[in-house]
Amino acid sequence: MKSLDESVFAIVGLGLMGGSLALALRAGAACKEILAVERNDDVCARALARGVADQASADLALAAQADIVVLAAPVRTILAQLPEVGRQMRGGAIVIDLGSTKQEITRAMASLPASVQPIGGHPMCGKEVAGFDAADAQLFRGAVFVLTPLARTAPSTLECAEAIVRSIGAHPQVLDPARHDQIVATTSHLPFALAALLMTTADDLAHQDELVFALAASGFRDTSRLAASDTQMMSDVLLTNRRNVGNVLRDYGRRLNRLADAVEREDESTVNAILQRAAAKRRELFHA
Amino acid sequence: MKSLDESVFAIVGLGLMGGSLALALRAGAACKEILAVERNDDVCARALARGVADQASADLALAAQADIVVLAAPVRTILAQLPEVGRQMRGGAIVIDLGSTKQEITRAMASLPASVQPIGGHPMCGKEVAGFDAADAQLFRGAVFVLTPLARTAPSTLECAEAIVRSIGAHPQVLDPARHDQIVATTSHLPFALAALLMTTADDLAHQDELVFALAASGFRDTSRLAASDTQMMSDVLLTNRRNVGNVLRDYGRRLNRLADAVEREDESTVNAILQRAAAKRRELFHA
Repeated sequence: MKSLDESVFAIVGLGLMGGSLALALRAGAACKEILAVERNDDVCARALARGVADQASADLALAAQADIVVLAAPVRTILAQLPEVGRQMRGGAIVIDLGSTKQEITRAMASLPASVQPIGGHPMCGKEVAGFDAADAQLFRGAVFVLTPLARTAPSTLECAEAIVRSIGAHPQVLDPARHDQIVATTSHLPFALAALLMTTADDLAHQDELVFALAASGFRDTSRLAASDTQMMSDVLLTNRRNVGNVLRDYGRRLNRLADAVEREDESTVNAILQRAAAKRRELFHA
Repeated sequence: MKSLDESVFAIVGLGLMGGSLALALRAGAACKEILAVERNDDVCARALARGVADQASADLALAAQADIVVLAAPVRTILAQLPEVGRQMRGGAIVIDLGSTKQEITRAMASLPASVQPIGGHPMCGKEVAGFDAADAQLFRGAVFVLTPLARTAPSTLECAEAIVRSIGAHPQVLDPARHDQIVATTSHLPFALAALLMTTADDLAHQDELVFALAASGFRDTSRLAASDTQMMSDVLLTNRRNVGNVLRDYGRRLNRLADAVEREDESTVNAILQRAAAKRRELFHA
């Protein structure tokens, strides 16, 4: 097996995540060549002009030249691309993805030709701004990068994936896909849903009262930030993690109703217990 | 009536908001003297040492020396202080508060002696860190500062309050207390409740799975930020805006269930409609 710095990468999808990976690999001189598969001609041209990619085209056939193929599109696009990527890849090549849910992708990876080596991936970082122009070589620095090997994933493939993760400044965390999807439903998909529904709630009130957004301060701004995330990406995420997301949203709804009950009946001790527990945990995690 | 720069201020409660007001008034040389009424001896000593206050004591009797009394404690402490403040104040003096809900406070202000001039206030800014040490002379800069005059509030009192607001770099917005409380239930109290319940939801899962917070990235961090807010302040806020808060939380819970329904039945067009509306509005408001 080639060392990382002798390897040719094909990155499929040069948006925020794929573009940031290309920039990070290049910044660290971590690989030999970067081939970009990207539908948007302008992005291809800019990636070539900036030296971020050595070749760029809309054709998945570029994957045939790669030692390591990275799928960096929204989850359901990855699911659609996998069979063709598998047909194109050379024997022994590795395919890893950057998708935000892992069960459906690793299930689809299990059907790839036996000659290729698949492993799931999910870097725990992002921005609410999408696209190649928002890409950032520092995006992965310090982030946890989840790796979900399949039963068929060779130890050397996992080692290679861990080397990629470390080369961009992230920390590998091997995880079962089901466990990953359950955790991120709470830590990532729920915060996104809360931000989106906060925006629609406030927007509905703003249709009755023109001062609503004039009174929205930094708390509203930060709590609603994720609502600006790429909607195609997030729609794919929610729809490929349906059971976990449904369960978490309904559980959260019950918590909201219990808080509403306590507020309405002026049950100060219940309100305080909820608020104090939340504040203590938030301060422990982020102000330590 | 004295001009602002000839006026003596008494600020009751030298926490984040009262402390920031004292710093901002001082930075702008906007008044003659600042008297601090503060229960915490250490804070009094530091305020005097830093020259933020000219006198500082736990005794509300200091209010008797002031032309303008500012109540900067949590809402229910303000409600408890108002009768005594009214007894102490000299004739013609103004009392304004910085509390986050306005209906109960303006109702209590209506019972003050006829010789004093009350007006409600609420600066639309804050931090999730409480206390005098977090106070910041720039906190109000650029913020909307709601003023809620009573029927008995003289035009000259409103003018004086507007001058105070402008002297600290904020923008006055006159508003009816009921309308204020309805709007902030959505723009401020709802985001806080969402952040607090996000923390307790994740913490419950973390008791079953030790990797939960390892996978929490910047989205979780920002969406949960308000959970660290001062719990006494926020408990007072929710409990003095019970009907609006209860209605908003229940309405929001119904939106969550509708989104959960759409996700579970893989209703892509409903999911996309919600996500796209939220993203468009968020980008219009904050990325323009």
